[in-house]
Formats: sequence, C-alpha cells, structure tokens
Amino acid sequence: MTMKRKKVSVIGAGFTGATTAFLLAQKELADVVLVDIPNQEGPTKGKALDMFEASPVQGFDSKITGTSNYEDTANSDIVVITAGIARKPGMSRDDLVNTNAKIMKSVTKEIVRYSPDTIIVVLTNPVDAMTYTVYKESGLPKNRVIGQSGILDSARFRSFIAEELNLSVKDITGFVLGGHGDDMVPLVRYSFAGGIPLQSLISEERLGEIVERTRKGGGEIVGLLGNGSAYYAPAASLVEMAEAILKDQRRVLPTIAYLEGEYGYNGLYLGVPTILGGSGIEDIIELDLTDDEKKELDKSADSVRKVMTVLS
Amino acid sequence: MTMKRKKVSVIGAGFTGATTAFLLAQKELADVVLVDIPNQEGPTKGKALDMFEASPVQGFDSKITGTSNYEDTANSDIVVITAGIARKPGMSRDDLVNTNAKIMKSVTKEIVRYSPDTIIVVLTNPVDAMTYTVYKESGLPKNRVIGQSGILDSARFRSFIAEELNLSVKDITGFVLGGHGDDMVPLVRYSFAGGIPLQSLISEERLGEIVERTRKGGGEIVGLLGNGSAYYAPAASLVEMAEAILKDQRRVLPTIAYLEGEYGYNGLYLGVPTILGGSGIEDIIELDLTDDEKKELDKSADSVRKVMTVLS
Amino acid sequence: MTMKRKKVSVIGAGFTGATTAFLLAQKELADVVLVDIPNQEGPTKGKALDMFEASPVQGFDSKITGTSNYEDTANSDIVVITAGIARKPGMSRDDLVNTNAKIMKSVTKEIVRYSPDTIIVVLTNPVDAMTYTVYKESGLPKNRVIGQSGILDSARFRSFIAEELNLSVKDITGFVLGGHGDDMVPLVRYSFAGGIPLQSLISEERLGEIVERTRKGGGEIVGLLGNGSAYYAPAASLVEMAEAILKDQRRVLPTIAYLEGEYGYNGLYLGVPTILGGSGIEDIIELDLTDDEKKELDKSADSVRKVMTVLS
Amino acid sequence: MTMKRKKVSVIGAGFTGATTAFLLAQKELADVVLVDIPNQEGPTKGKALDMFEASPVQGFDSKITGTSNYEDTANSDIVVITAGIARKPGMSRDDLVNTNAKIMKSVTKEIVRYSPDTIIVVLTNPVDAMTYTVYKESGLPKNRVIGQSGILDSARFRSFIAEELNLSVKDITGFVLGGHGDDMVPLVRYSFAGGIPLQSLISEERLGEIVERTRKGGGEIVGLLGNGSAYYAPAASLVEMAEAILKDQRRVLPTIAYLEGEYGYNGLYLGVPTILGGSGIEDIIELDLTDDEKKELDKSADSVRKVMTVLS
Repeated sequence: MTMKRKKVSVIGAGFTGATTAFLLAQKELADVVLVDIPNQEGPTKGKALDMFEASPVQGFDSKITGTSNYEDTANSDIVVITAGIARKPGMSRDDLVNTNAKIMKSVTKEIVRYSPDTIIVVLTNPVDAMTYTVYKESGLPKNRVIGQSGILDSARFRSFIAEELNLSVKDITGFVLGGHGDDMVPLVRYSFAGGIPLQSLISEERLGEIVERTRKGGGEIVGLLGNGSAYYAPAASLVEMAEAILKDQRRVLPTIAYLEGEYGYNGLYLGVPTILGGSGIEDIIELDLTDDEKKELDKSADSVRKVMTVLS
Repeated sequence: MTMKRKKVSVIGAGFTGATTAFLLAQKELADVVLVDIPNQEGPTKGKALDMFEASPVQGFDSKITGTSNYEDTANSDIVVITAGIARKPGMSRDDLVNTNAKIMKSVTKEIVRYSPDTIIVVLTNPVDAMTYTVYKESGLPKNRVIGQSGILDSARFRSFIAEELNLSVKDITGFVLGGHGDDMVPLVRYSFAGGIPLQSLISEERLGEIVERTRKGGGEIVGLLGNGSAYYAPAASLVEMAEAILKDQRRVLPTIAYLEGEYGYNGLYLGVPTILGGSGIEDIIELDLTDDEKKELDKSADSVRKVMTVLS
Repeated sequence: MTMKRKKVSVIGAGFTGATTAFLLAQKELADVVLVDIPNQEGPTKGKALDMFEASPVQGFDSKITGTSNYEDTANSDIVVITAGIARKPGMSRDDLVNTNAKIMKSVTKEIVRYSPDTIIVVLTNPVDAMTYTVYKESGLPKNRVIGQSGILDSARFRSFIAEELNLSVKDITGFVLGGHGDDMVPLVRYSFAGGIPLQSLISEERLGEIVERTRKGGGEIVGLLGNGSAYYAPAASLVEMAEAILKDQRRVLPTIAYLEGEYGYNGLYLGVPTILGGSGIEDIIELDLTDDEKKELDKSADSVRKVMTVLS
Repeated sequence: MTMKRKKVSVIGAGFTGATTAFLLAQKELADVVLVDIPNQEGPTKGKALDMFEASPVQGFDSKITGTSNYEDTANSDIVVITAGIARKPGMSRDDLVNTNAKIMKSVTKEIVRYSPDTIIVVLTNPVDAMTYTVYKESGLPKNRVIGQSGILDSARFRSFIAEELNLSVKDITGFVLGGHGDDMVPLVRYSFAGGIPLQSLISEERLGEIVERTRKGGGEIVGLLGNGSAYYAPAASLVEMAEAILKDQRRVLPTIAYLEGEYGYNGLYLGVPTILGGSGIEDIIELDLTDDEKKELDKSADSVRKVMTVLS
C-alpha cells in the first residue's frame, strides 16, 4: 500500500485550461495532464514546462504534463473539459451548439476510454447542454458528470458587491440558480455580507443593477479584452469544484446537475445548489422558491431545453 | 495611524505582467495596479477585472486595477517593469536594445514622477542593460533598482534536477551567477539536493547537459510555444523578489545588482548573490570563485558591457 | 523609505497567548512579542524559542520574542490581551471581575506607555467589562479598543452545524450578537449553509439544542479538559481580528464594540456586527431585530452593565 | 470509486501530540485521530473539540477525533507515536529506556491490530532505540517504520544560523547525521545560506558554538520552560514527514532509518539522509564522509547500540 498522488486531466490548453492546470498544481491538489489537439502539442508542452519551471519558486510538487495523447490521461481522478470553440461573428447559435457537441463527444470518448471511472467537470458553452452531451456519451452515472456555472456567476456577483460596499470579498456570499449568463437566477434574498442580508445594505435599485451586471459578466470581459474571453475566474471556479471532490469536502456549491424530478424538472442539466464531495454530486438541495424565482427558473430551464433540441 | 495596504504596480500587461499581477494579488502581498499603453487599456482593464472576479473563489482581498494612466500608480512601494518588445526575426540585436531602452526611459520617467521613492524591479531583456538604463533614468539609489534573472535561471536548473532525480523541487537548491541565458554561470558546486552535492548524485556528463539545457531554457519554451515566450516561471520569480522586499525577509537571492568594485567590476549591473529585504538590495555577497568560474563571469560581464555600448 | 514588518504583542503567555503568537507568526502577519510577568520569563522565552525553531520547517519568517519587559513591545501595531485569571472554585464573580480589572489596568498602562497609538484587542473575561476597563485606562479612541467574543461563539456554532449536516465548515456562516457565553444572542435566521437558511435544513428542535450547546461551548471544553480552558479556537479568533486589521481587509465580523447610541445602548461595550479594517472598528452595522431578538440583546446588555457596576 | 480522505493517528495527546494533530489538520493533510490512555480521554476529547471549533475560522476541513479507543484508529495511513515518559530527576537512563520500550510495544500492538499496513513515525526518546522497538514489534517492513530526529536538529541549527546572519530561515539549509542531541553529527560543510557555504559567512569558532548550541537544543528549551519540553518544533518536524509521505513528495530528509549495511552499520536504526515518499523511506543516501565525520558517526552508532542492549 503506497500513497499515490491524485491525477487531474484538463482538456483544452487555451487560457482557461492552462490557468486551471496551473492553479491545480499550485495547490498540490494533484498531478496535472494538460491536453490539446495534435497541432497544438508544442504550445501545450511549452505551457506545461513553463509551469513546472515555476514550481521550485512557488514551492509546489505537482507534475505537469503537456500532451496531445489521451493515453497520458489514463486513470485520472477528475477530467475537466475546457475545449470547444467560442461563438464567432456571423456564426449561428445552432452552429456553435453542434460544433461544440461534436467536440464534447469525441473528447468524452477518449476520456472514458482511459479513465472509465473518472469524474468529469464541464465548462464548455452552452454549458448545460454540453454537460448533458458529455453525460450521455460517457455512460457515467449522473453524479460523476457535472457542469460549472454557478460558482463563476456568484463569484462575479460577490466581487461586485464587495466593491460596492468596500468590504472584504471573504464575507460576501451569493447564490445563483439556473442557467449561465442571461438566464441566471440570482437569489438576492440568499446573498449576504457577513451574514447580513444585502437588501438592508444596498438599495433595491442598485442591487438590480448589480444583478444585471452579473448576468452580463462574461460579455463585459469579452468587450474589454476585445479578443478572447475571461479565464482567471472561470479557472478558479473549476479548481474550487475539483478541490471539493479531491478532498471529499462536501461543499455546498451551485453546480449544473442532472435533474430527475428535483425542482419539478426531468431529464435535463440545470444549475442548482448541490453538495460536492468525493463521489461528485452527493446531493441536490431543493430550496423553497418564491413564485417569481420559480418563474425565472422555468425560463432558464426552457432555454436549456431549447438548446438541447438542437442536439441531434 | 492606520494600517495601509502595500501597493505594487506592474508595467506591461502582457502574459508575464498579468501573471505577475495575479500571483501578487493571490498572496495578498499588495494591491496591484496593472499598466499598459493607452491602446491596450481595454484588455488591461479586462484582465484586471477577471482577476478580481476570481478573488472571492480564491479567497484573496487585494484590489487589482487595470489602467493606462500612470497617476494610478502613485505611491507604489514597488514597480515591476515587464514592458518591452521581444526580438523579432530580422531585427538586429542593437535595434532590440535601442527600442527597449527607449521604452525603459519613458516608463521610468512616469514611474518616478508618481512614486519618487519606489523600488523598481526590471525583467525586460536584455535585462542587465535595461536595469542599468532604468537606474540611470530614475535617479534612485542603486539598492532600489534591481534586475531579475538568477531566480528564473536557477528555477529552471532546479526543476530539471528534480525531474532527473525524481525528487521534490522543495529540496533542490541551485545557484547561478552572471548574465541571463547563454551567459549565465551556474555554480554547480553550490547546488544541492537536500544539502547533498549534485556531483555525488548525477554524472558529470549528465550535469553538463542539464546546465546546457538551463542556459537555453528561455529558447526551449519559445520553440515549443511557437509564438510567444515563457511567463509562468518569470512571473513567479518577480513575485519572489517583491515578496522578499515587501515582507523585509532578507532572502539570499541571485539578482542583477549594480556593482561598484564587487567581484572586480565597476559601473555595471550583473547577476550576483544578494540579500533582498525591505530596502531592496541590502548586501552583495562576494563568493570565492575558481579560476574557471571567474573566467566565465568575466565573459558574462563583457557581454553586458558590449550591450551597454549600444546604449547611447 | 524602507518596508517595515508589522509588530504584534501578545500579553499573557499561557496556552491562548502562546497559540495566538504561533498562529500570527505562522501566517507571517507580523513579528510577535510574547509577554508575561517576570516570574514567567523563562517559560515565555522557552515557548518563543521553540516557535522560532519551528519556523524553518513551517517556512515562516516572523521573529518571535519572549519577554517580561514591556519595552520590547514598543511601537506595536496591535496588542492582544489574553492575561488574567480564570474563575476558581469558591471565588465570587465580583472577585474575578475586580482581580482581572486590576490586571487590565496595569497591563494597559504599560502597553500605551510604549505604543501610544496601538490597537488593543481584549480576550480576558468577563470580556465586555474588561474591554471597557482597557478603553477607559488607555485613553485610546473607541475604534482602537476592541473585544473578542462573537467570532469564537459563531465558530463553535458553525462547527456544530457542519458536524450535524456533515458539510464543509467553509460553507457554514453563523451570526452571534450580545455577550459571550450564556448571554450570547445567536441570530439563527442569519445563519446559513452555502447561503441556504439553516431552518430549511435542520429541525427547530435540533437547532435549539445546537444553540444551547454553543452557549455552553466554553464550559463543555472546560469540563472535558478537567484542568484549563479552550485555547485553539480562541487563539484562531484573535488572529482573525488581527489579520483583518493588519491587512486592512474591512471584514464584517462580530466584535465587542463601544456603543454610543447604536442599538439604543449608550456607554457600554457589547457584541455587535462591525467592520474591521486598518483603523480598527471602522463601522458598526445596525441590524433590524425582531422583538424577541431585541429582548435577548437587552438581557445581554443588562448583564454587561451589572458586571460594570462591580468595577469601581 | 470515491475519493477518500487520508487518515493519520497521533498516539499521545500531550503538547507535542496535540500540536502535531493541529498542524496536520490545519494543512488539510488528513483526518486526524488523537489517542491517549483511558484516564486522559476527557482532555483528549477536549483538545480535539477545541481544534475542531477553530476550523471554521482557520478554514480547514479535517475531522479531528479525541479517543482512548484504538478502534478509532482503524485504517490509518500513518500513525505518529509521541507517547512515552520524559526522564525524571533520579530516574536512571535504563529505567527510562525500559519504561518507554514497554509503552512502544503495547502501543504498537494496538496500532498494527487496526492498521496492519500503516506507516509508523516515532518521536519518543531515546528515539533510535524506540524506533527499533516499534519496528520489531510491528512486523512491518523497514521502510514503513521511521524515526524523527534530524529534521528537528537541523531546524534548530537553521534557526540559529538565520538569527546569527539576520537572514530569512527560508534560505538556510542544514544537515545532521547520527543520533539525536549530544550524539548528532552536524555536517557543517553541507550547510548553506542561499547555497553559499556557511564557512565563508561565519567564523569557525562561532560556527562551533552554534553547533554546540544545536546539540544541546532540547535541553535549552527544557531549562527555560522549567517544567516540560519543546513541542512546537518537534510537532512541525513530524508534520513535515507525514506530508512528504501523504503527498508522495520524495523529499530528501534526514530521518532515522533501519540500516542493513549502509554506512557500514547493520541491524540498527540511525539518523541518515533518506528519500521520503508514498511508501515511507524509499531510499537511503550514502554520503562520502571525512574521517572525522565517520568517527563521530561511529560514536553515535555506539551510543545507539548501548541503549539497545538495555532492551531485553
């Protein structure tokens, strides 16, 4: 019996994938394999090597491998999928869905071939539908295929609130249900500064503006960058999920989970509060929603279903 | 009397500058101002905002500002310069030197205008000459203008040794004198695994290969990436220096220091072992060198002088 | 201009004081001076030296000094008071109050003699009255004299809830007003698991038991230890306050603050939600309380006043 | 396949055992079981509970259990033994050896009964002989029974050097062979400040004094405390070993290993440089020693053998 290091593979070596790999390694959560397609093998190896060369200075002992060969991902405890294309000008939404669904399928086939019992965390957009695609293709139980969106959305909400109140981000909690972006359902009444309801600290109007900014949070970064999209906060969110699983922390985190009756939905992936631990999603928490919140969540679920009809 | 946060400005919001900003913020070492030229203001703000949105998840409380306005850097405790161009195909070395020297001068003017007592850390290549340029332009005392190269070079050396011996990077120490890259003088006899001399663990031939790989370490990454150069390990090295200064740690680190007689050199910046603390370079340590080592260091100093003659 | 390390003095080198010193040093928050009375100078120096000898292994660079000479505390940024006696069998409550008040006065005199602008954090029981005593004796503005109780009380509450629900302690928030121990007013409706109200996760009866266990939390440890009282959680709570101040984090934390009209009380120290930053207590947050909560808080305030009448 | 937390049991809930448990939990290295004899069950449970109540504030998610029932240690990945008595005035050395050997045997029997494949780390003095006793009693392979002394001895040496030179402890490396305390063989020529040989920074005479102080380091603390012995630095040293094993770091650390021919010794435990990883001691490194060093090491081995003859 020998203590073995954990292993996490990250599919897609773009900014988000690379940053995810670095943050995982930095925390010594696992050895990391960064994977991209064959014609990106050089850059992928280059990034992995650069990270490894930072390790003596940052003081972490995780191996980081860059590769285009899925064999290197064998026996991963977790696989994170960041691969996929971003929507380009002139591209229809359906084209985006179909292109990324194709990528999800081919990537998932390779993942489960070498790690048949792994846990998969999906970031690729539109993330609810892509997580569903990976779930179907993988044959893994539903608790082992999970999408990311709520941690990122609530991180944005929390940082805007911290800025607004000039308070530590450590004390701001926020809660987001439903789909990513425009469809998100921020539960303001479950959001706090040091346990104090935000409504008693910020005017309703200003809160509404902050919610709106949160909804458009991804777009705000895209607009500023001009070329490309956010990667620090998305990567941090993925690492939060991986840590909860690898350390069996049983965190209460909003993730995209497969619903079978919860909240009245069936057969779709949607952002809900979950308990994340050593076996992936260990529980889904059902909140009492107001009529307005439920209506918003329905809308969110409809959006997801609409995207899912494109998949064929 | 109020406790005030420290402030670090990072000039140049490319990959190295941005990663430096993130690693500084993540450690809560200081509030960070990321600066780039006006036509890069959007992306600079975008990166800063993305980092800030990661802060609730990563749990750090540093403000991160993206700007093209040097006023925002006012009263920085430390300013890190990563700005500058990389050598492009067809560009002569002298052109590179002159272009970057011009950038150093204009950037330094702005820095000291708003932070007349700051400490400046320079990364831009050719780093020995660029540090000299900043020193002259800034009017700051020599202990407050410092170049980075030895931490990065020895980090590479250490990671290669750790990989070779399959040992923790935490226990490998390495020591590098002289210029960056081809001119570096790795002191193998002062390099150890857990205090054990490397020569008793690795054959001389293999050690020679690793030294050679270290010398070409920057080029290896450039070759793999295809487009761009290393940024994780350089950023980590800059952060190590900033932390030593901000926390007044009196670390023993190889940095590029202004020599006035030390090692027999006068009036140039060269990589030597230094003590880095709250006032910058607090001491230069003079090692006994073998004849061979001294010869290599002379060569390194000659290279630096040659580059300096280009500056005019 | 040189970067200077922060300095924190801890008065009282018993288990809580020593553990506080160690946790402060371990986080590199400041250099630490551990102070006890002259006949305890040997053990105080011994503990400080033992901690310093742990520093190369734990990797922290804080100086730790053991002393019985207040001169060594000169120019402390923060002074933490853990000195005082515990109530012994047969000792009346008034005797305890008067003995510890005498200790507070003599200790405070020495503190402000050498650090006239410091911030003082008080742990000694009965903490509301002792904080008041220190405030009066010190002549410092009210924002610079702060008592600890709510962080510890809510830490206990949070750990019990995490255990009950088998969830990560990271996601449990809890909120406590009023006095320490029996007089504490836990605001269950402001306590959450991952933002989800506890009432929807735990039965009212069970919640009541946990609140009751929290109230008696100090006594539970005393009973188990047989000889002595809690020190890990109290020390952690003191360090949380020191960190918020030293790093100017503007945390939202329940602390014992001097009230001048807030919550309808005047001229006494009581546990309330505050904003803790670089100048100590930067704000007091006034919550809307239910009638029941206000009644409990009144009772708490009465207890404090009763203790204060003993002081003479 | 579910991610499971690691488990470490600490036998002996005195200061060193309790501090070890806390530092392990704080780093989230494992869930921790703190064990003491039945009549100490209350205090053991009290300390464990106090630590757990610190966890929401310090932000760690490790379970900590206090117990006197070895069943609770079942399936430990590592068991650390700190149990045993200290030498009292008037007690002969042989009495100490025999009393602690008896404790080692009874403790080991219980350990392997519930964790037949564990790795055992021994701190109890005289540590070389006690590690041997545990090895024999456990029936475990030699790589899975390890004693601690060199990390602590070199930590003391390193802290004294850092203080002497006013340098960061992070950059001082030190190396110690042989027995604990008076018998230790500090290899000054393998000790460095930032890779620079100490001999070029400190006079031989002063170095000799520091070596002597290191040898008597345990006694210095005992003398200062008056009652009791060091526990912060010993606990930190045990945690360093546990971390190297739990994370399979392959650290180069001086530990007490069973020698079968190495350094010319056979059938005894002695402090030597080892590689510590996921299966315990993965290798013993044989250094070239000078005649003087070898002579000192022989003396150290003789001492160990002499103690071993007492065991019967």
